Formats: sequence, C-alpha cells, structure tokens
Amino acid sequence: MAKELTSRNEDYSAWYNELVKKADLAEHSDVKGCMVIKPYGYSIWEKMQQALDKMFKDTGHSNAYFPLFVPKHLFEAEEQNAEGFAKECAIVTHYRLKADPQNKGKLIVDPDAQLDEELVVRPTSEAIIWSTYKKWIQSYRDLPILVNQWANVVRWEMRTRLFLRTTEFLWQEGHTAHATANEAVKETTQMLDVYAEFAENFMALPVVKGRKSEGEKFPGAIDTYCIEAMMQDGKALQAGTSHFLGQNFAKAFNVQFTNRDGKLDYVWGTSWGVSTRLMGALIMAHSDDDGLVLPPKLAPIHVVIVPIFKTEDELNKISDKVQEISSELRKQGYTVKFDNRDTHKPGFKFAEWELKGVPVRLAIGPRDMENGTVEVARRDTKEKQVMKLDEVAAQIPKLLDDIQSNIYQRALKFKGEVTTQVDTYADFKKVLDEKGGFISAHWDGTKETEAAIKEETKATIRCIPLDAKEEAGVCMYSGKPSTRRVLFARAY
Amino acid sequence: MAKELTSRNEDYSAWYNELVKKADLAEHSDVKGCMVIKPYGYSIWEKMQQALDKMFKDTGHSNAYFPLFVPKHLFEAEEQNAEGFAKECAIVTHYRLKADPQNKGKLIVDPDAQLDEELVVRPTSEAIIWSTYKKWIQSYRDLPILVNQWANVVRWEMRTRLFLRTTEFLWQEGHTAHATANEAVKETTQMLDVYAEFAENFMALPVVKGRKSEGEKFPGAIDTYCIEAMMQDGKALQAGTSHFLGQNFAKAFNVQFTNRDGKLDYVWGTSWGVSTRLMGALIMAHSDDDGLVLPPKLAPIHVVIVPIFKTEDELNKISDKVQEISSELRKQGYTVKFDNRDTHKPGFKFAEWELKGVPVRLAIGPRDMENGTVEVARRDTKEKQVMKLDEVAAQIPKLLDDIQSNIYQRALKFKGEVTTQVDTYADFKKVLDEKGGFISAHWDGTKETEAAIKEETKATIRCIPLDAKEEAGVCMYSGKPSTRRVLFARAY
Ligand SMILES: [Zn+2]
Ligand SMILES: [Zn+2]
Repeated sequence: MAKELTSRNEDYSAWYNELVKKADLAEHSDVKGCMVIKPYGYSIWEKMQQALDKMFKDTGHSNAYFPLFVPKHLFEAEEQNAEGFAKECAIVTHYRLKADPQNKGKLIVDPDAQLDEELVVRPTSEAIIWSTYKKWIQSYRDLPILVNQWANVVRWEMRTRLFLRTTEFLWQEGHTAHATANEAVKETTQMLDVYAEFAENFMALPVVKGRKSEGEKFPGAIDTYCIEAMMQDGKALQAGTSHFLGQNFAKAFNVQFTNRDGKLDYVWGTSWGVSTRLMGALIMAHSDDDGLVLPPKLAPIHVVIVPIFKTEDELNKISDKVQEISSELRKQGYTVKFDNRDTHKPGFKFAEWELKGVPVRLAIGPRDMENGTVEVARRDTKEKQVMKLDEVAAQIPKLLDDIQSNIYQRALKFKGEVTTQVDTYADFKKVLDEKGGFISAHWDGTKETEAAIKEETKATIRCIPLDAKEEAGVCMYSGKPSTRRVLFARAY
Repeated sequence: MAKELTSRNEDYSAWYNELVKKADLAEHSDVKGCMVIKPYGYSIWEKMQQALDKMFKDTGHSNAYFPLFVPKHLFEAEEQNAEGFAKECAIVTHYRLKADPQNKGKLIVDPDAQLDEELVVRPTSEAIIWSTYKKWIQSYRDLPILVNQWANVVRWEMRTRLFLRTTEFLWQEGHTAHATANEAVKETTQMLDVYAEFAENFMALPVVKGRKSEGEKFPGAIDTYCIEAMMQDGKALQAGTSHFLGQNFAKAFNVQFTNRDGKLDYVWGTSWGVSTRLMGALIMAHSDDDGLVLPPKLAPIHVVIVPIFKTEDELNKISDKVQEISSELRKQGYTVKFDNRDTHKPGFKFAEWELKGVPVRLAIGPRDMENGTVEVARRDTKEKQVMKLDEVAAQIPKLLDDIQSNIYQRALKFKGEVTTQVDTYADFKKVLDEKGGFISAHWDGTKETEAAIKEETKATIRCIPLDAKEEAGVCMYSGKPSTRRVLFARAY
C-alpha cells in the first residue's frame, strides 16, 4: 500500500497528490475545482477548528454567520477589493430550473427566473459584513465588535490542487471593528500571533511572521500581515493572513460612529483568516515517503494497536489486555484504535497506519503476552522499542509529547538550513535553483523591482519579517539603497 | 426594553419577529431571504451543534465535506428529487465579473465567462454525495458508510421568516449507505430517535415521532420519518426528518456493490437532517412576553449576576464575593456573566437578561452582603428566593436542573392540552379554528382527501405517529374505512 507512493525525491508534486488520496484525506469531485474532504481528512480539520476556535474565544471573539451571497452593488462598494476578486467569482443569475421541453427528464434554467441583481458567491465576506456592521454601530459604546465566522468561500480557480488551491474551500474569517487605529492594529498583530502560536504548537510548523509588500497585500487592506511556512521541497506556503483594513471598508459602506469626544468618525477594521490550505501545509511539511506524519495534537487517532495472532484464543487473550491499555489511555483523553481485523495481515496494517500518520503503533503477540512486553513504534522516526505491558499506558503521553516536539524541531532545523542570506542577484538565482528555501536579501522597496524579480525567477517576496533588523544595504536587483532584508521564495 | 415586545396574545407573529431581533438572535440581511445569525443567536446554535455532533459520533458517524455546487446533470439524475427542488434553486451561470464600460467603478457579469454547464447551489446534497459514493463502494466490505456534513444550503423562498424559512440556512445532513434494506431502515429510525432525544433532553421540547404521508414525504425517499413539535400558538413545527431512501439514489447514480453472496446489488440509503429552524422552534415553544426562555442545556449564559450598588466601594466588595461564586460555578462547567456596567440601572439589566433568556439571575446589594444573602430569580417561573451567599454556588446546579425539567414538563403539559381527538369533519374544523393544536383523526389514506383537507382548512397531516394504535374507524372527510388515526395541524 504505502509502497505505491511516489517518493518525494522522484516527484514531490506526485507524492503529495497521491498521499492526499491514499491516506483518505480528500479527492476531486465531479464539480470542477471543488474537492470532497473525506472523513479522515475532515477529522484533522475538525481538530484544527477546535484548537483555533478556543484561541479565538479566549481572545474575546464570538462566532456569527453572514449570508453566502453578496449582492453585486455591495460587492462593488470597496473598489480595490471588488477589483481583486471580480475575476474569480461564481455568479448566481437565476433562481429556478424548469423541465426542458425538448428533452424529457432534463432541466434547463428558467429564463423567467432571472434575478434583478446578480449575487456573487462570497469569495470573502468584508462587503456583506461591513454592510451589516453599519446597522450595528452608532457609538463608541458599540465597539469593538469581535466576530469570527466559520464558512465556505468560492474563488474560481483555473488550476487547482487538493487543499492548496480549490474553487470552494473552508475557512474562518475574523472581522473586527474598532474605535481607534491603534486598537485595530493591535488586533491585527494579536491574531497574527494567535496563528503563529497555533502553527507552532499544534501543527508543529515553525513560521516566519511578517508584513506583505504592497504588491502582495489583500485588496482593500492598508497592511497585510502573514505567517509563512517552509515545505520540504524548498517552497514557501502562506499559512495565514491578518489584515489591517484602516477605514477603507467603513468608508465604502459609510460606517461611522460617535467617538468619546462626541464627534463622528469612520470605524477602523481588521480581518484575518486561515483555511483548509493549512491541511496542505501540514501534509507537506512533515510527511515522508511512507505516508503522513501527523503531530499528535492534530492526529485523529493517537495510538493504533495491532494484534499478532494465529488462533482466536490468542486474539482473545491479547484483546483483554488491549482493553485495559485502551481504557487507561482513553481516560487521559487519547484516541486509540484496536485494529483486530482478521482480513488483513499485520504487515499490511502497519503500512496502512503509517500511511495515515498515526503517531504511535503498538504490536502485541503471544510471545509479548508471555513476557509482559509490547513493541512500540513511533511514526516520526520509525524507531521501535520494547516496553512493559503494565507501563505502556503510563509512558505513551510522554512519548506523544516527544513526537510532537521532535516533529517541530525537525521542521525548525530544516527551515534554518534552507534559509540563505544573499547579496547579489547572481547568488540569488543560483540559491533559488539549486537549493530553494527562504532567501533573505535587500530590496529597494519598489513594485517594479518586485515584479521584475518575480517575472524572471518566479520568486516572490513572502514577507518583510517583523524581526528584520534595520541594516543599510543595496537592492540586489537595482543597486538602490535598502534599509532591511526581506524574505523571498518560490511559493505555493 | 422587554416592555417593547408585542404580547403573544396580541400578535404571536409580531411577538416572534420582535423577539428574534431584540434578543440579538438574528436579523434580515441585505440579501433577499437570507439572514444574519448574530453572535448571541449563533452561540445557541453552537450548543445545539455540539450536542448533536456528539450524539452522531456516539452512534458511529463521521463528518465530511462535499461541494456546495451540484452540476446540473447530477442534480437531474434522481427525477423526483430534481423535480422537488428545481423550482427553488439558486443557479450559478458565470464565473467572472468585469468592469462595466458604460459605468465607471461598476461591474457587470462577463458574458465570455459563461459556464458550459450550470451549477445548482445545493438545496440538499443527495446528488453530489451519491455520485461520490459510487467511487467509494465496490463491495459489502465498504459498507456501511456513516457520514454527516455540517453545511449551508439554499432553497429559494419567496416568503421568508427568520430561522423558520430562509433562502440560505445552516443544517447538518447525514447520508448513509448500507448493504441491506433492513440495516438502512434501522439507521433511519435510530436517527429519528437521536433527534427526538435531542429535542426532549436539550431543547426541552416534547415531540411526536411519526411517518409522513405520501404527499408530505421527501422527494426521492421511500419513507420520511419526522419529529413534530407544538408551538404556543397551536401550530405544529417539523423539527427534524429522517429519510429511508431505499435504492432510489443508488439506482439514479448506479451505485452497486458485490454482496456477501458475490452478487451485484444496489446500495440502500438514508438521509437525515435538522437545521437552524430548530432555533425557531426553541424560541416559539418556551418564550414569554418578557422575552426568551432558554433551557439551561442550550443557554450561552447560565447565570447572570447583577450588583446593586451606589458607591465604588460597595461595588468592590460585591465584586470580590461575585468572583468567588463565579469561580466555583465555572469549575462546574457553567457560564457566568457579571454585569457590572455602571452605565445602566439594575432594572434595565434585569429586563435585558430576561429578554435574552438567561435561566438564573442573582442580585446582590450591600444589605445582602451584610446578611450573607443573595436574591435568586429563575427565568422560567419568575420566582424569586433568597439564598445564603455561601451556599448559592452549590445550589445552582440543582436549580438549573429544575428549570430544564420544568420547561420540558410545561411544554409537555401544553402539548397534551392542545391535542384533541375528533371523529367528524365538523368537529375537526371547529377545533382547528377555536383551539388549534394537534388533531388526531381518521383518514382514508388517499392523496385526494389529504389535499382536499389542506385546501379547505390549511391543516396538513403532520405525521402518522409511530405509536398510533390499530383502530377501526372511518375517515372524517370521506367516510371511507381507516385503520389508524393520524395527526393533523396547521404548521410552520
Ligand atoms: Zn459527471
Ligand atoms: Zn443594499
């Protein structure tokens, strides 16, 4: 089973596509560009949702729900945002089908049911939400509004990849409204920190926090902050964004409030989101040629137990012991799967659970039962050790913590190794082609240089790292002066 | 605040609409027929979701996600289903907007971006899911498939009411596939039982379990089971449905499997769902002229504490005591709100939290602090009692249980009182107009009679109760023989 995976070295892209399908995470649907998220994949997404949702609530946010459709006149209101998404929108124009008179059993769009105003299927919800906030906000006492929405959005994509770029995807979008610019900026960076903490603590994914260049920022934002992660093939992946919207949407939708001094002012806004794209990042950052490697904190199954048996009697004895161990682990909040199928051999099961990334596998045979031992294999390093049956349940929590931390450390080390500082454009291109990864270089700050580098090398400015030091230098491309290095990479 | 609510007697419908808005549950959006679910309303929906999701998982189901869009050729495949939903579908015909050459800053649908095949925004997902199951199922070993999806769906409605009937709504839809008819029927009734249990235990809503008549069943189903609840105005509300699909969708999508005997057969299916309509049922079943009455198990806030104070010193002393009480309650899993705003008077706060249905309110003033007492008011009966400050945290769990149970008993008593057995059509019409409620009567089992009664009285057959006794009788309308009574009502 696992043997059938193309290796990462051979073809990283094929490896990813095969892994997503074979590990039962997702598949293409009959709808162009839209995916089906299968139960195993969805259960990982649910774990992500739970962790993030708790972090949002701990920082004072509530969930709400806004319409899927955005009437065209609202969609148009914030010009940059409209321009940014107009080219990739699904448009509802009719509200009824009728029987096809030419073709029994078939349906056609009813021309009499055309909408007066077309509806855009939301590619993002700033427009519909700010048109609602207008009704909610009169005074500074109505602020801040700290709302999040878990929803599906649609951006028409011509070239799609499971999780990474799909026409419909699932996400959360926070939309907050504030009385001052300062408070909105603080919210923007707070949520960036939440995303970074989630990526590192739950996904075991080290990220760089930074600000986007003018050319890469969200249409309609003043500033876009992001977390950027590094995949095993040396390409970067934007894992989350947090936008300071200034008063742009408040002005577009005329959302004003009476401030503490009794004067009318426009409301300050933020928005921030992560999506099912995180699933792609999780898979690509940690997995290997045998399949998924999941950090325990997001693994739907923590421990799989495979019995080695020939007779039913042997299986029964093993099962009794497994019940004990499972029940001890479940009491501590872990999910345990006992794979007692008699239709498959242990070797097949080992490969299947490796493919699915279960962090810890126990194998117990009759010899183990006699000796009071169990073979414990960890997915991340493939190391095996023998533990005492009576101690294994007590030792697994520590082992899972070790795995979580090892996966993170391994990714952190890799990210360090593929981050290179360069000072000339020749070196830049050489590193990009031979090694990939993040390249830290001086840039003159202009759109023209950014565009030229992208055109020539397909590398983009991933971000201006928040911890970038002030440092006098010259742009590697134009030779013009620069005050800090930015991070380039080819990216997903 | 609460005073502004129209009373139920005066105008039940106005009372409902006002309550939904004033209690911050939901509001109309700028999109025709679509609602905004506000944070307070959404937090009740989240509690419903959590409870239901656990029940689904405890009965072996997993969540997954399928596309929002259904290509027309798939939508057409199951004829009855297609016919049932064709008249109320949102249709996507284009995938791009472009700048309006006549009108700077405005956008128009790009005629060059017309889809080859129109996409239907899912009104329900049988079509897209069964076209997927075709890929998942080859053998009986692949069965059962027990999948649920939490999603938004769209049914174009001309006349909408918040929560009760909206063009877009949120729901869960279970879709299962089985090797035998028997197993599928068992799944159908199991999920009906889950819904009934949820309604009664969490929503405090007594329901009648039954089967729909041919005229009222889900398009594409063999049998539709439902739970029916009774609202305070004597109208019924369908609160959940569970469909035995037979092999209809398997045949429409050619989903066959090799059974244990090595023979090819079509797969048996079920689907079942509840939606944000449950919010409407919850509100209408229990609330009163002062606002919401929420069963504690679904209340976002269990206890609100209102300090009565004149000086800051008084507030500080009360706050210290409130901290203690709150922390004890939070440890036990309850949500406590301390309303220490100095911008509003206690009377205003009392009315506001009554409007929002918080089950228990504590009021503490300086006199209470001296006496070591606290005033405890329960929302359901409006009764007040004095408790000892040191005992209140220990007594509240019991009080909340009492409230949960009292709300249920009250609704159960009401349902009993407004359920009437009649034997003549004259009595039927009289009871319907003068008293409303459920009317248990004999019916000849024909579509014609059902339609005539509906036409003449606006009452529909809510269900054939599962516990209906075999009883010889004659149809109150046609005089033809009947073997059991069915339940009629006017309904939402
Ligand atoms: Zn097709
Ligand atoms: Zn408008």
